[in-house]
Amino acid sequence: MAEKIEMLRALMRAKGWDAVVITGSDPHCSEYPAERWKQVEWLSGFTGEAGDLVVTLDHAGLWTDTRYFIQANQQLAGTGIELHKMRVPEQVPIPDWLRGQFGDDGLIAVDGLSTGAEFAQSLPGTVLSVPDLLSRFWTDRPGVPQTPVITVDPGESRAEKRTWIRRFLQEQDCDGILLTALDEVAWMLNVRASDIEYNPLVISYLFITQEETRWYVLKDAVEDPESRETFSALASEGIDLLPYDDIDFLGAEFRGRLFVDPATLNYQLYNNFVSAGIPLEEGTGPVALRKAVKNPREIAGMREAHLQDGLAVERFLYWLEKSLEAGREITERDAAVKLGQLRADIPGYQGDSFETISAYGPGAALPHYITPRQYAPVIRERGLYLCDSGGQYLYGTTDITRTVPTGPCSALEREDYTLVLKGHIDLAMAVFPEGTPGCRLDILARAPLWRSKRNFGHGTGHGVGWFLGVHEGPHEFRQNFNAVPFQPGMVVTDEPGIYREGKHGVRHENVLLCVSAGESEFGRWLAFEPLTLCHFDTSALEVSLLDRSEIDWLNAYNERVWQTLSPKLPREIADWLREKTLPV
Amino acid sequence: MAEKIEMLRALMRAKGWDAVVITGSDPHCSEYPAERWKQVEWLSGFTGEAGDLVVTLDHAGLWTDTRYFIQANQQLAGTGIELHKMRVPEQVPIPDWLRGQFGDDGLIAVDGLSTGAEFAQSLPGTVLSVPDLLSRFWTDRPGVPQTPVITVDPGESRAEKRTWIRRFLQEQDCDGILLTALDEVAWMLNVRASDIEYNPLVISYLFITQEETRWYVLKDAVEDPESRETFSALASEGIDLLPYDDIDFLGAEFRGRLFVDPATLNYQLYNNFVSAGIPLEEGTGPVALRKAVKNPREIAGMREAHLQDGLAVERFLYWLEKSLEAGREITERDAAVKLGQLRADIPGYQGDSFETISAYGPGAALPHYITPRQYAPVIRERGLYLCDSGGQYLYGTTDITRTVPTGPCSALEREDYTLVLKGHIDLAMAVFPEGTPGCRLDILARAPLWRSKRNFGHGTGHGVGWFLGVHEGPHEFRQNFNAVPFQPGMVVTDEPGIYREGKHGVRHENVLLCVSAGESEFGRWLAFEPLTLCHFDTSALEVSLLDRSEIDWLNAYNERVWQTLSPKLPREIADWLREKTLPV
Repeated sequence: MAEKIEMLRALMRAKGWDAVVITGSDPHCSEYPAERWKQVEWLSGFTGEAGDLVVTLDHAGLWTDTRYFIQANQQLAGTGIELHKMRVPEQVPIPDWLRGQFGDDGLIAVDGLSTGAEFAQSLPGTVLSVPDLLSRFWTDRPGVPQTPVITVDPGESRAEKRTWIRRFLQEQDCDGILLTALDEVAWMLNVRASDIEYNPLVISYLFITQEETRWYVLKDAVEDPESRETFSALASEGIDLLPYDDIDFLGAEFRGRLFVDPATLNYQLYNNFVSAGIPLEEGTGPVALRKAVKNPREIAGMREAHLQDGLAVERFLYWLEKSLEAGREITERDAAVKLGQLRADIPGYQGDSFETISAYGPGAALPHYITPRQYAPVIRERGLYLCDSGGQYLYGTTDITRTVPTGPCSALEREDYTLVLKGHIDLAMAVFPEGTPGCRLDILARAPLWRSKRNFGHGTGHGVGWFLGVHEGPHEFRQNFNAVPFQPGMVVTDEPGIYREGKHGVRHENVLLCVSAGESEFGRWLAFEPLTLCHFDTSALEVSLLDRSEIDWLNAYNERVWQTLSPKLPREIADWLREKTLPV
Repeated sequence: MAEKIEMLRALMRAKGWDAVVITGSDPHCSEYPAERWKQVEWLSGFTGEAGDLVVTLDHAGLWTDTRYFIQANQQLAGTGIELHKMRVPEQVPIPDWLRGQFGDDGLIAVDGLSTGAEFAQSLPGTVLSVPDLLSRFWTDRPGVPQTPVITVDPGESRAEKRTWIRRFLQEQDCDGILLTALDEVAWMLNVRASDIEYNPLVISYLFITQEETRWYVLKDAVEDPESRETFSALASEGIDLLPYDDIDFLGAEFRGRLFVDPATLNYQLYNNFVSAGIPLEEGTGPVALRKAVKNPREIAGMREAHLQDGLAVERFLYWLEKSLEAGREITERDAAVKLGQLRADIPGYQGDSFETISAYGPGAALPHYITPRQYAPVIRERGLYLCDSGGQYLYGTTDITRTVPTGPCSALEREDYTLVLKGHIDLAMAVFPEGTPGCRLDILARAPLWRSKRNFGHGTGHGVGWFLGVHEGPHEFRQNFNAVPFQPGMVVTDEPGIYREGKHGVRHENVLLCVSAGESEFGRWLAFEPLTLCHFDTSALEVSLLDRSEIDWLNAYNERVWQTLSPKLPREIADWLREKTLPV
């Protein structure tokens, strides 16, 4: 690592750069980048999902948040790269740190492709965009991925979606829109691929005007039959297919007012447009919100996905319990593999929606635990086991966490188990007026923990895509201010937790669907309906900590799980599930 | 009214003004202005506490919010002035409406004294500041009030407070600060008067530099002995007393960087400073937050005030119940007068903290009901009576609402009564991490109502001053985003409600003190302690709607009320209170 940093410094000296900033993202500001853009990992060895690097002539630093401190300390040891902590009260974000070093006079080089325009503009001094800055050193750098592109049918045609976005352009008085976020492109064109692990996305840009649609998607890689079929269907609808890299020419070719979302537009493209004199309308694009509100066919698909997924998780929990009872040694990794196999049997399964977190005891105390592929801890017959996982299906995406006792639990484990479930239920039971954003509802999941001075340090829930990213906006349950109100058809996770270092962790997660709850003289009302179908274990409950309404909710939910799943399960698992779902 | 508007239009034609904007505030952006600044009322006849007027050559409009629609419709009938509704989804605020009329080319005249700088700057076109614009027509306009100025002892001296604010000036790199908000001036100088009804304030400006302190306070009115004593004490501490109107010269006299709060600085002064070339540091002043966090002596005073006030309210509720039992005819007004008399007997009583809302049945369905002075409705021996009132004492300020049954109640009345109390209790019981703002806690008071699709259209709680305004910031319980976190020592009301037009209204209000709740491995925690001491009636409760923890809270609170108040009450009232506070 130290050699790579020194190569970079030699370039910096030659060019007169004061600092180089390398982010952990890709040209589309994706949360999870493909291998080609794991530049932070290549330079530093740090493999966490969030991390940005700053290199100056006498300092190299990695900026990451609370989730990755332990991992960063381990992986950076001996590299000379220092950890800069974020999401702590004393945090010094990169722009402030750079200002402290160079005032407003620094010459800062960034890889403009993998740096968002918004972030680059927040940096002090002169910010130079150098595309693929590291490619000159990184000789075996992977290319831009190109995996088979398939077509999906979410119940709305590409033509309908384009008509809708062209109306948006008219309203905004814009001549064109460039979609840069990969899930927005996939949604607009009803296409999916697997260019990024766990994310069924096609690395590409989509440009739409009243007259034309250009999809910058073609790479040097050989084309496969599936992609050819999809591409020819698109071409027959008047969509021009262009090489991915031709996006560089858009600034020179297009004349007119262009709508862009600076949160997902990279700095290199932004500079292209500005220097070409294209008037930019910068704002939050319309696709994210529209995409978040699922249509009836998408909702039906999500229900089916959660039914199938729930069956797999019930089979998994049954297998786990019986295996432990039989005295077999099961590691966290064995369990993750078993669950993956059960999901793989589901029709339409396209892969997991993220890497399964299979964590026993102290491992579960890390909210973003990575189950070791080798020498994984063994699951013991006492305490709590946590499994957070999800699947990608042709008809929907799932995300579920169950924490289950694998034997006797301590009083603290039982209390934590129950209070987290209480918070989960209180949020799931919420009824609220139209116009309410998730940041107001968040506390419903926390208040039961707060009363006994317990808390958790992550958001309470995120949107879930329809066979798209398992994380999507713009709505969420989170303490930070976010004005986006819930609407019927939005899908969101409800996943409070408690984490006790060195002891145990608890998280209970269902995916909820926002539904109308009717009207009253006080206005129109919304509520949630769980999409996830998998029982909550009642043996670790401290029932006295639940209110009557919470007990009623839990019993009704478990009964619904049993009613829905048992006809589709083998007799012995159905009988086991009957026991598990008896009312408390 | 129409004549006044026509006089104004003649002036507008002569001057070439396109529009005149008259706000309902005073030169200090006060929530409640003195008579001199009730300009909207003088021009339009509208007496609501929030209303702004816009007059053009062919239109006259009053902008007010939901609370005052009914009243505005009645009071504006026949005046030709149109009601413009605010706090409704389709609202068109004054700046937008003016832009619709005149684009950015209008010449808009405002009374620069009674218009805040922030608001004036939001208006489109050229905004002309004309001080006391209406005085040329309003021949019997009241002068600037000057009531006796007294000194209070809140446990921190003027000298300490000035040392503190001078440190603030250093930190901000400013040479001077002008305090324009009346409660901030009163707090800084430990002075009170009664220049504005219900508000123990001195109409004045306070200017502080490292070297000098100037209080612009003197009016043409005759000075009284109390003021003379206060003034001479201040003068002996090096505080210069200047005529109120001399503030006009400050711009010409002062050289240096001046800190001002544009939320409470009037537009006329703002223009003075700008044209004098004074560099302004605009921001939220430091006094509001410091003032909101009560010191131990202030907290002790608030406790005493709430004890005394609670005794008066218990005597009042006893009197009301016994009078009705005896068959006496009691009007809402009789009740308000009786309560005022009981408060007036309390040592240190300085007046009410706002006009008592004494409302029976349908009257209580208006959250801001004004009890008629004549022909007030009679309180019947069925349903619910609501009384929202408060006192100003030399040692604190109170604000309390009790809703009590005056006889049999309908099932809906009982449900509403109980669900509002459930919300009140859930907020009062909250435990929350340091750093939590009130906008996140607000939903705790609403969720129990929301579950049965009920709601209320006002904030859930406001800060309360220490012998100052009954409304003060910067913290609050409200759905709108407000990032100010709670701190130990902050005082706030907890007052959810339900209002059913034509039927009844319920509101339960205590004043709460924010206190530390200790530490845990998850951080430091805060909670609330009720300052208000007055029982909640249990006879109208639908106990089955309360959880165990809520019942426990209620029983403990009522027991504490009985324990604390009964030794100070006459035997027959103490016995009555014992009955009222028995556990449910």
